Amino acid sequence: MKRFLIIGHKAVTEGGFSLNDMPGGAGRMDVLCRCVNSCFFLSHDLRRDVECYLLLLGEPNPPKTILIKGNEVRYLNPDERSAGSLIKKALQVVCGEEFIESTKGIYIRNGGLERLLNEIDFSVLDENGTDIRSVEEIPENYILSDHMNFSEEEESLIKDLPKISAGPKVLHADHTVIVILNEHDRREK
Amino acid sequence: MKRFLIIGHKAVTEGGFSLNDMPGGAGRMDVLCRCVNSCFFLSHDLRRDVECYLLLLGEPNPPKTILIKGNEVRYLNPDERSAGSLIKKALQVVCGEEFIESTKGIYIRNGGLERLLNEIDFSVLDENGTDIRSVEEIPENYILSDHMNFSEEEESLIKDLPKISAGPKVLHADHTVIVILNEHDRREK
Repeated sequence: MKRFLIIGHKAVTEGGFSLNDMPGGAGRMDVLCRCVNSCFFLSHDLRRDVECYLLLLGEPNPPKTILIKGNEVRYLNPDERSAGSLIKKALQVVCGEEFIESTKGIYIRNGGLERLLNEIDFSVLDENGTDIRSVEEIPENYILSDHMNFSEEEESLIKDLPKISAGPKVLHADHTVIVILNEHDRREK
Repeated sequence: MKRFLIIGHKAVTEGGFSLNDMPGGAGRMDVLCRCVNSCFFLSHDLRRDVECYLLLLGEPNPPKTILIKGNEVRYLNPDERSAGSLIKKALQVVCGEEFIESTKGIYIRNGGLERLLNEIDFSVLDENGTDIRSVEEIPENYILSDHMNFSEEEESLIKDLPKISAGPKVLHADHTVIVILNEHDRREK
């Protein structure tokens, strides 16, 4: 299993946002939607061995964690609106501390980064990290930030985790996921 | 300069389509929008050394070619609707045989694949091609198809071009562009 956690620093935490304004009113929800696409889509197939965690830190009810499981998810199409629509549905569910399923293969709970770090051994995707092509043992689990840098509080929580880089240029989060999965594909073949 | 040509087999050729239904009524225009994103976006920068050609083959006025130049383009944001909106504006321009600018850095003309092949030396992104990591001299210009296979007529036009693969799994066109550009980044550094 490969896991990607993307932190959406401004992504709203209620389901009333407009699919027509995901970069604005929804707090750059478009970034998270593209990351969902990157995690799962192959030509005429889904990556069933990937899980995608979205950490939503925008108003009004942060933090919330959405989990999408590649081996269970249904109704997901590649366009941004499709992922956005499923995120909206998840945010409309009244959730507690444990994951509850909103639509097939998509789960939501209250809770943030610290809890996830206690549950999963993550590496951090970081422009100054070790090149993914040169790591001997490729990590399974990765943390990425959206269009913003990690906050000081997040930096202090992740400072001792391994750092991995996707290459010489700093890429958008969704593009980084593609490069990392391509390296996995090559090592697994 | 690196050039990507993406063939949109059903992508509509008039500007009246809805940004809310790009996968449906606009003939999978969402695929082309994601390819535009992949061609140009870096974290807090654009790839100014990339040109993106979109070949639109859907009704009612095919073929049309849209050209987006990374060193000139303005008003382009990473979300699908942003690229879609600029494509709509291009399709609203009355164009002839030569490129005419619709918005800053975006051009449109009538004409199809055969003309482009006479103008530019392309390689074809193909799952059975040579791995991009193992080609000695990396190509500058690439042809990709959208969610459909190349047509028989297209196949006959491109059959003698070099074939390049992005890795062991068959990826969406926009994901393939990311992998190819990552290899360029590494060789140029």
